[in-house]
Amino acid sequence: MFEFDIEATSDLARAGVLQTPHGLLHTPVFAPVGTQATVKAVEPRELREMGATLVLANTYHLYMRPGDELVRDFGDVHGFMAWDRPMLTDSGGFQVFSLGGLRKIDDEGVTFRSHLDGTVHRFTPEKSIQIQHNLGADIIMCFDECPPPLDREVVRAAVNRTSAWAARCVDEHARSGDPNRQALFGIVQGGIFPDLRAASAETLVNLNFPGYAVGGLAVGETKAQMHATLDQTVPLLPANKPRYLMGVGSPEDLVNGVARGIDIFDCVLPTRVARNGAAMTRRGRLNFRNAKHATEHGPIEAGCTCYACTTFSRAYIRHLVRAGELLGHQLLSLHNLHMLISLMRDLRAAILDGTFSAFASDFLAHYRPTSKEANAPPVGQD
Amino acid sequence: MFEFDIEATSDLARAGVLQTPHGLLHTPVFAPVGTQATVKAVEPRELREMGATLVLANTYHLYMRPGDELVRDFGDVHGFMAWDRPMLTDSGGFQVFSLGGLRKIDDEGVTFRSHLDGTVHRFTPEKSIQIQHNLGADIIMCFDECPPPLDREVVRAAVNRTSAWAARCVDEHARSGDPNRQALFGIVQGGIFPDLRAASAETLVNLNFPGYAVGGLAVGETKAQMHATLDQTVPLLPANKPRYLMGVGSPEDLVNGVARGIDIFDCVLPTRVARNGAAMTRRGRLNFRNAKHATEHGPIEAGCTCYACTTFSRAYIRHLVRAGELLGHQLLSLHNLHMLISLMRDLRAAILDGTFSAFASDFLAHYRPTSKEANAPPVGQD
Repeated sequence: MFEFDIEATSDLARAGVLQTPHGLLHTPVFAPVGTQATVKAVEPRELREMGATLVLANTYHLYMRPGDELVRDFGDVHGFMAWDRPMLTDSGGFQVFSLGGLRKIDDEGVTFRSHLDGTVHRFTPEKSIQIQHNLGADIIMCFDECPPPLDREVVRAAVNRTSAWAARCVDEHARSGDPNRQALFGIVQGGIFPDLRAASAETLVNLNFPGYAVGGLAVGETKAQMHATLDQTVPLLPANKPRYLMGVGSPEDLVNGVARGIDIFDCVLPTRVARNGAAMTRRGRLNFRNAKHATEHGPIEAGCTCYACTTFSRAYIRHLVRAGELLGHQLLSLHNLHMLISLMRDLRAAILDGTFSAFASDFLAHYRPTSKEANAPPVGQD
Repeated sequence: MFEFDIEATSDLARAGVLQTPHGLLHTPVFAPVGTQATVKAVEPRELREMGATLVLANTYHLYMRPGDELVRDFGDVHGFMAWDRPMLTDSGGFQVFSLGGLRKIDDEGVTFRSHLDGTVHRFTPEKSIQIQHNLGADIIMCFDECPPPLDREVVRAAVNRTSAWAARCVDEHARSGDPNRQALFGIVQGGIFPDLRAASAETLVNLNFPGYAVGGLAVGETKAQMHATLDQTVPLLPANKPRYLMGVGSPEDLVNGVARGIDIFDCVLPTRVARNGAAMTRRGRLNFRNAKHATEHGPIEAGCTCYACTTFSRAYIRHLVRAGELLGHQLLSLHNLHMLISLMRDLRAAILDGTFSAFASDFLAHYRPTSKEANAPPVGQD
């Protein structure tokens, strides 16, 4: 289980297949985020229809509500949310470190208050792994410290802690988990500092994980810094293991990430953009609050085969957004997820065809990021 | 067009078929409400899947936004919202009379302020019909005055005005409409007063409409008053024309309405109940905020064939509702609409089978209204 075969490469880009207990996962792949065991405003049958294969759920949120033991008793997170294809859970680290108010970090773990009711809880590497065992996703993640990426001393301390915690996660997974049911991935930290990334990668590679994530990006650095960090970090990871860039999901970031050897992505961006009344397309974003869409007969994106684009006009989508109707949110979520998933399918096909380089250049030449998209840091996780 | 054939009767209950430009409409039928050209949180393909045939849209709301001429230019409300089965528009009267603030009624029409931007508008019977011509629904409604049903003098004045306006609606429809494209229904008013209902019905029957609505109910009277009014009013309407009870849609009201000879119903109740985190079942409502559902493996309603019931546990629905996830609203909306539509299918089948009386008695014996449902007036329109 969890064998990863690389079928084709194009420079650093790879087309692979990962075995999981819930079927083969073809990479590169984009995972829609189902923070609370639901991809916001989208039904599981619709995720299947658009070709989604991997869905992410959130350990912190499901531990808090409804509780990981309840999820376990309903057939793991797959059974609970009715998703029978592969799933991934993050470790809860990102959420715990993002909480305001009380949050005390020590070498053993993190003590924090629930964002729901203020009760005090404690996560350790062992606890995070135990929760993820209850949730039962195919891919689970090490509990890591994810600091802002730009302060060298803070990042250095986080790398050291993340390394120590990674070894404890491995031990806990060996002790109480099943490596044929769940693959535990390591997370490389180190911010934008090459020597810290190298140190983090070396420690993790020695722990021989079945897959590796690049963490601590898309949280405040520039796109150029993100690309430079990937250029430097990815070659330090084993070529025969899947690589996961956490929390990244703009169309150009996906193309740039695949070109740099990333296999797996997740991001709340498509559903968040939808909630704000905008569509993601292969040429850039469309804001449906803009009056120019009011009388347009065409679909959100010409050529798109999603339900929204094959059924409704831009004018109707604009009407729904303007009227505050949930169907607008639903249809834009469908489209945005479909757009990213079909883009990933096309990137994979181009790698297999040997046309990836041309496809990526052409895509990036025509993609027009909004001014906000171009200048601001990428969006992090929920 | 708009021929109405009665296939079977059981005492006052009828199973009929109405010809429309968008296909045959089998009655009795419940129409989901798509106030702003969308049934809240439900996709048109899902309405089709659950067997919905007739959808109501709202003249006032679509006139205000996006504008009835724009809707016309997108293939009428059918094309705009992608619903190719029969549709019905109300006249806008109920909404205009429900508006707070400036609202001046005279014998010619009503002057009011938009709830969106405060601009001043005027509806007359002629204007309402012209807007409904632009919207293009199969069944359109006379512009009526819909007062609170309990004040005799207010109701008497409203009946007189509604009668005069009905004649003007008929004239306007003859002048600028197409009776083979759109059937104009009259609306009987008169509150809970038998003599006023009789006067209203007599005037309207003389105008020879292709269908008749009973208006001014479900707006503050008791259930007993509603039943008594139906018992008295329905026999005054032509037996060979469809009868529409506006704004009524609780399960027991549907059974009681069909038993009293009603053919068509509409109500926002199923989507409103869903928005509040509750399910409608054949035994009564389930409030998913209630902790008792937290660990229940069964579906919302045993035996229900809707997507929500065939896919998810009550525990999951409860989790979604508690977490404020839109999918909870979506799935409860699907279920509640499916429940009413399948109930109507069963009522129709029972009329055709000759088992209606037993079916209705059995249903009402087992239905447990919530205390709120039993005592409060039925819910009106959006």
